[in-house]
Amino acid sequence: MGHFKIDERDLFFILKDQLNYGRLCQMERYRELDEDTLDMLVNEAVKFAKGRIDPLQEIGENWGVKFEDGRVLCAPEFKAAFKDYGENGWTAAIHDPEYGGQGFPHMMRIVINDLMYGAAQSFNMAPSLTRGAAHLIEAFGSEELKERYVPKMYGGQWAGTMALTESNAGSNLAALRSTAYREGDHFKIKGSKIFISWGEHDLTENIIHLVLARIEGAPEGIKGISLFVVPKIRVNADGSPGEFNDVVCTGVEKKMGLHASPTCALNFGDNDGCIGYLCGRENMGLAHMFVMMNEARINSGVSGMTLGSTAYQNALAYTKERVQGSDLCGRKKGYVPIIDHPDVRRMLLWMKATVDGMRSMIYAGAYWDDLSHALEDGDEKTHYKNLTEFMTPIIKAYCSDLGFKVCETAVQCLGGYGYCREYPLEQYLRDSKIVSLYEGTNGIQSMDLMGRKMRMNDGASFKAYMKEIEGFCSEHANHPVLGEEIRELANTVEKLGQVSAVMADRSKSDPLHWSSCTYPALLCFGEVTVAWRLLDMAVIAQKAMDEGKKTDFLSGKIWQATYFAGVTLPLTVARLETCMRSGREVVEMAEEAF
Amino acid sequence: MGHFKIDERDLFFILKDQLNYGRLCQMERYRELDEDTLDMLVNEAVKFAKGRIDPLQEIGENWGVKFEDGRVLCAPEFKAAFKDYGENGWTAAIHDPEYGGQGFPHMMRIVINDLMYGAAQSFNMAPSLTRGAAHLIEAFGSEELKERYVPKMYGGQWAGTMALTESNAGSNLAALRSTAYREGDHFKIKGSKIFISWGEHDLTENIIHLVLARIEGAPEGIKGISLFVVPKIRVNADGSPGEFNDVVCTGVEKKMGLHASPTCALNFGDNDGCIGYLCGRENMGLAHMFVMMNEARINSGVSGMTLGSTAYQNALAYTKERVQGSDLCGRKKGYVPIIDHPDVRRMLLWMKATVDGMRSMIYAGAYWDDLSHALEDGDEKTHYKNLTEFMTPIIKAYCSDLGFKVCETAVQCLGGYGYCREYPLEQYLRDSKIVSLYEGTNGIQSMDLMGRKMRMNDGASFKAYMKEIEGFCSEHANHPVLGEEIRELANTVEKLGQVSAVMADRSKSDPLHWSSCTYPALLCFGEVTVAWRLLDMAVIAQKAMDEGKKTDFLSGKIWQATYFAGVTLPLTVARLETCMRSGREVVEMAEEAF
Repeated sequence: MGHFKIDERDLFFILKDQLNYGRLCQMERYRELDEDTLDMLVNEAVKFAKGRIDPLQEIGENWGVKFEDGRVLCAPEFKAAFKDYGENGWTAAIHDPEYGGQGFPHMMRIVINDLMYGAAQSFNMAPSLTRGAAHLIEAFGSEELKERYVPKMYGGQWAGTMALTESNAGSNLAALRSTAYREGDHFKIKGSKIFISWGEHDLTENIIHLVLARIEGAPEGIKGISLFVVPKIRVNADGSPGEFNDVVCTGVEKKMGLHASPTCALNFGDNDGCIGYLCGRENMGLAHMFVMMNEARINSGVSGMTLGSTAYQNALAYTKERVQGSDLCGRKKGYVPIIDHPDVRRMLLWMKATVDGMRSMIYAGAYWDDLSHALEDGDEKTHYKNLTEFMTPIIKAYCSDLGFKVCETAVQCLGGYGYCREYPLEQYLRDSKIVSLYEGTNGIQSMDLMGRKMRMNDGASFKAYMKEIEGFCSEHANHPVLGEEIRELANTVEKLGQVSAVMADRSKSDPLHWSSCTYPALLCFGEVTVAWRLLDMAVIAQKAMDEGKKTDFLSGKIWQATYFAGVTLPLTVARLETCMRSGREVVEMAEEAF
Repeated sequence: MGHFKIDERDLFFILKDQLNYGRLCQMERYRELDEDTLDMLVNEAVKFAKGRIDPLQEIGENWGVKFEDGRVLCAPEFKAAFKDYGENGWTAAIHDPEYGGQGFPHMMRIVINDLMYGAAQSFNMAPSLTRGAAHLIEAFGSEELKERYVPKMYGGQWAGTMALTESNAGSNLAALRSTAYREGDHFKIKGSKIFISWGEHDLTENIIHLVLARIEGAPEGIKGISLFVVPKIRVNADGSPGEFNDVVCTGVEKKMGLHASPTCALNFGDNDGCIGYLCGRENMGLAHMFVMMNEARINSGVSGMTLGSTAYQNALAYTKERVQGSDLCGRKKGYVPIIDHPDVRRMLLWMKATVDGMRSMIYAGAYWDDLSHALEDGDEKTHYKNLTEFMTPIIKAYCSDLGFKVCETAVQCLGGYGYCREYPLEQYLRDSKIVSLYEGTNGIQSMDLMGRKMRMNDGASFKAYMKEIEGFCSEHANHPVLGEEIRELANTVEKLGQVSAVMADRSKSDPLHWSSCTYPALLCFGEVTVAWRLLDMAVIAQKAMDEGKKTDFLSGKIWQATYFAGVTLPLTVARLETCMRSGREVVEMAEEAF
């Protein structure tokens, strides 16, 4: 009796009608697959999320994590679920069959995470981090490391973490102090890490930490950071468990939410007994880690979006059942379900549109990422690579902040009950707050977008993004039903281009002022992207309806698009104007004046 | 070692420089007071909040409430604090000395609550509800009821509640089913109530419930509801405790926040032993209760604003201490406190402005309310009465939603630490969520504002509001420093007037469409009000600076006003446009399309 609810039609509409994801199966890389197989994977993931993962949400929240003498005890049900998750192939669905994967397109990882995070975020962090850590070893580790660690991690036997943060090195990894001392073919690791999600637990017999540290004598700053594989229990040559590797959990954070996910402080090598293995090239650790980091950023967006999605679906179900008050126009006699009240519908429609638009944004980003890998070298491949890079900070920051806002709105639909643990909504709100904070705060994402990404490859990433939207707008500018909204989108995109140019100049001439406007600018990119994705879906739905398929489902795609565009884009334009203000209050204000 | 932080200068700037609250002491009603006495009360309240109430925040959160065999056990420290609170006069500061009050102006209650809610919201609900309940008896009860109950409630011996909600009568009180059976000079009460804040506890020897119920045979709907005084323990004629009055707590809600405030389900008269006394006139219960309800709505706004205020002050202190990253322009060497990062400052300045503007809105509303009571009959008195009525839903809804948003932003300033219980921010975020939900959801407030309040007295309330802002704008339209922002405010106000007129028509011609736009419209009223209050303070600060008082504090009043107006009003205008859209998606969408 869980709370996970999803309308699969929304998923398939994006995957099939909007993206035509079956196209991937025509490419060399995926030629052994066909669209039916992809569809089946989605359907199986829905089943697994509903049947196996959903119950963990409440079990985990009730159990939390128990910390006793350096050990972290999780809800007993999590252990079997983690194993099943790996054994059923969900951890490694997209990876190389040589190491236990199934070779599905990369985007299927996003679809799987959409479902699994939506069902139980706390739990799904464990296999998701494990996959990311294993993938880092697969990508950069020696053949020996790969063979020894990766299959067991992909297979659900062992877990993995990413161990970056230290107490004085959070957003600024340049300051990190953990040290690796050369010792034969390996290193001795010494250092303390904090905020390590799933850093210690009893789900698996071993935990493989991917640790950033400085090799003794390495340069200061980010150019002296290397990446190490550091198991909790050493692994013998034959793969059997060896000695304890001196990795000690010294504490577990008490948090606002995500209560079933242990956030750990870890000490490495307090007793000089912690061995680590270099993964990839010396002093290139941060670049290597960024492979995982970019995936984690996308996953943050996925979490925000899908918690919003589950919250919306729960609010929707509630508003259809809860009877309160009379119809404003007497359309029905007596008291009515609150979905009949327009102010409640306003919240529902906004949530529906925002969630569907974010899902389309994320799935499209994942699809483009796949194209950037699967296409043969050439302009098209480069275009999608650029596009993907531009989308990452938008997906991370916009979907995390808006996911939280959707959860807040869903709580509001329940009135006082929304505040009570008896309903699942308040937990989604608490859980979802983390995603704007970790994997680089949303402020940092906005500086990445409006700085590095904007300048990248001489502006090619930004141009790739603009090309996609402008192409859509000009193709459909005279659409008989949606033309007005599409032209409004085109005007907003034009303004977005102007503001981006002004801000690019300002990033050089007045970087302080520039960086006081990057977050509002990122919000505008998010809104424009959602409006675009929704209008694109609406065009497809209208076409189907013109061809005679008149369904409420298709009508919903049109209503949500015109509503979202109509109530959002005018505010986007206004916010873009504010990004060009000359007022420098934020920068000039004396610290004592705050 | 609590977390309550406040800059008293902000309070006094509003009270003295902006509102000139000493003027109240020139009126007949308050002629025994002077401004120094009011100032002293504020200073004493700050001291009491910091010294006595602040520690209860953490004590309460750690203890929560324990529910055992129908008894609710609160943190032991709460008991003595409740008594002190009453005995020191904080509960009844504004009330009639005849019943234990001190006769201070009404607005001082708001200032006191600002401080006490800001220090410990969960706790302060207890004396605040007690005051409200006692005041209802004072206003509508018989002389006997008044003498028997009011002084002990004001004095901190007994507590009080407001018992309205039933499981099928939340937003819609017309559906309530609790019944009162006539029996001699009193009534027998039967019924079940839910969501009763501080409905049961061990702080006091008695709890006096103000209960809405139907007298047997009364008309259906809201015209058949009466108000009753229902003690937990009956009170003998000499004031001594009598028999148990058959009021049983059957459950306590588990909530997202406000953990130290017991939210109770209460059964009245399950064993036919519950006696109640009619308070006020038969079938006028809802009208009577609305006196308390309006105060509770203002208090919701106060809670939202002051939790935002405390969250902001905590975030500010953190950002001055936390060192992370380098200065974007190399203004300082090495790593810098994060308040030097413009994106962090953006959040701080927005929070500062929003909190200060909301505080001024609330204090002004309270001051106008005082004028409406203290002035002699005439146009001015009527003006302030109208103005106060118009402000109530704006204060309730805008300050609760924006207070939550400020708390969210404060969490964001701390990065991952914002999510941890180690810092107080996440609790403010959780606690503050309740205020948009209770005392009438914010959606209901918006329909009250754009419906009843807009039409009230032939539009006189709305006109009173517009007159105040338009007066300010035309007086200062050519202000040498602030003229640009004030003219932008004037333009926004003009648009606000147009939209209000269109919506007033639509409330008759198309009420469903109208009510899908009331909440966005309310947001616009909130933003305009905050911008006005901030610009008004800025004009005063600029004058002081022109006279030679150049301080960072005064500069801050100007920076925050131009920044808030500059980044907010363009979005307000855009949102006002969306309120006039002809698109009826919210209304027309088929339920199956959601």
